[in-house]
Amino acid sequence: MKYKRSQRLIDMTQYLINHPYKLTPLTDFVERYQSAKSSISEDLGIIKSQFLQSDLGLIETVAGVSGGVRFIPKMSKQVAYNHIQNLCDYLKNPERMLPGGYFYLTDIIGNPTYLRLIGQVIATRFADQEVDAIMTVATKGVPLAQMAALYLNVPFVMVRRDSKVTEGSTVSINYATKGNPRVEKMELTKSSLAEHSKVLLIDDFMNGGGTISGMLAMLKEFNSECVGVSVLCEVHQENHEMDFPIDSLMRLEKSADNTEIVELAPGSILAHMSDD
Amino acid sequence: MKYKRSQRLIDMTQYLINHPYKLTPLTDFVERYQSAKSSISEDLGIIKSQFLQSDLGLIETVAGVSGGVRFIPKMSKQVAYNHIQNLCDYLKNPERMLPGGYFYLTDIIGNPTYLRLIGQVIATRFADQEVDAIMTVATKGVPLAQMAALYLNVPFVMVRRDSKVTEGSTVSINYATKGNPRVEKMELTKSSLAEHSKVLLIDDFMNGGGTISGMLAMLKEFNSECVGVSVLCEVHQENHEMDFPIDSLMRLEKSADNTEIVELAPGSILAHMSDD
Repeated sequence: MKYKRSQRLIDMTQYLINHPYKLTPLTDFVERYQSAKSSISEDLGIIKSQFLQSDLGLIETVAGVSGGVRFIPKMSKQVAYNHIQNLCDYLKNPERMLPGGYFYLTDIIGNPTYLRLIGQVIATRFADQEVDAIMTVATKGVPLAQMAALYLNVPFVMVRRDSKVTEGSTVSINYATKGNPRVEKMELTKSSLAEHSKVLLIDDFMNGGGTISGMLAMLKEFNSECVGVSVLCEVHQENHEMDFPIDSLMRLEKSADNTEIVELAPGSILAHMSDD
Repeated sequence: MKYKRSQRLIDMTQYLINHPYKLTPLTDFVERYQSAKSSISEDLGIIKSQFLQSDLGLIETVAGVSGGVRFIPKMSKQVAYNHIQNLCDYLKNPERMLPGGYFYLTDIIGNPTYLRLIGQVIATRFADQEVDAIMTVATKGVPLAQMAALYLNVPFVMVRRDSKVTEGSTVSINYATKGNPRVEKMELTKSSLAEHSKVLLIDDFMNGGGTISGMLAMLKEFNSECVGVSVLCEVHQENHEMDFPIDSLMRLEKSADNTEIVELAPGSILAHMSDD
């Protein structure tokens, strides 16, 4: 069946949005819509300029025999900043401070609207980086890692603190956390990550950085490389225990006794996003 | 700025896809595009018919003052069946049988393409049901619950088997599993689910049904109601230990000694999807 331009524009828009980073040959569209290549190119030009205007991201054309077109989700820095600032304002509630200096984020992590925002921001920051996989620690890091994985179109793996019989053979490592004399353990299913992967680490909350250090140790076991670390909320500290740069969406400053929010503001990830 | 029809079609398509179930007044589009209401209605007609043709779902128009338009993600039964059959063929690998009769699904659960499919199938099945929230058990149920939550546009909550200090006050229940003399425990943060919610339960793998029974007990603690149970893979059994109907995407039949796959086929969820 031959498609009209209006039909092609709708179908290509949904296709590109639902297949981020997938390189699709123009001939696929030619066949799908029974339309001339020149018409498809024109369509893509219209979509490209509207995607920029709608702040969705880039439509990239790759020339050559193995070329095609792909959609790179990107959000402008200003829009990201405004959304994160609104999120900070919403979260600046003293009742969210939990015993031990933790911060209640569970509702955000189960909310589709906030998850989409978080995924888009992280995907924008690492759009120009080569990422083979995303790694996170169960449980609360999982939804964040998954959203970034959806927008970057890469798989994600879940490191666990408890052993489960339902996973097959695992690799386990021990790691220490600042201010906690106990040595902790984490495990990852052996077959879930290929050797020599370029991995983006994602977690929900970073205090001393012990969990991130654990994941970095885990990466070594898989001969894999960390290409970035992103957390939803980072606790402001003079010096973290690791020397890997952290891309945080929010930065929390607490009172010395861990009971009050002194400041909650957009984090370092914005500084690393390019201007529009 | 006034938008052309081609621009409106692209922007409305992305907006509707990124905001499933959200009722948007037509006047919002009129203002956004500086276009006449009649033009917006025409656009929506074109989008509606193309969304059906692209097997994305329904564009519903709600009349009246508080009315508007919304997108209901739905996949046709035949397309869902084909995708699930392909997934079964791919998974029918004896190496996936794990000790204890478990089945290796971790890679599927970390793969954006499969996750999108699973989310769409579950959302299609429960599109006509009133769902306030989705509940799952950490860890492997989380990505599935999250995908259904994204397509149904409802929050999801994560029940945990371990206690964490980072969650605030919790409600905990004990439950027994068939063939396991140990009584298990699960916990949910008190503030994460409102009383009298209509809840859809989602998990990755169902053998005896103990975990689902645990979640049903948890719902009672929140005076909430179960409106459906969906699992990625259900083990074929003469009788499950609960009497709630299960919507499974796949049904696994194992040899009596738990070491071989006898059959892996599309599950009961397809029977409950309406014909196109």
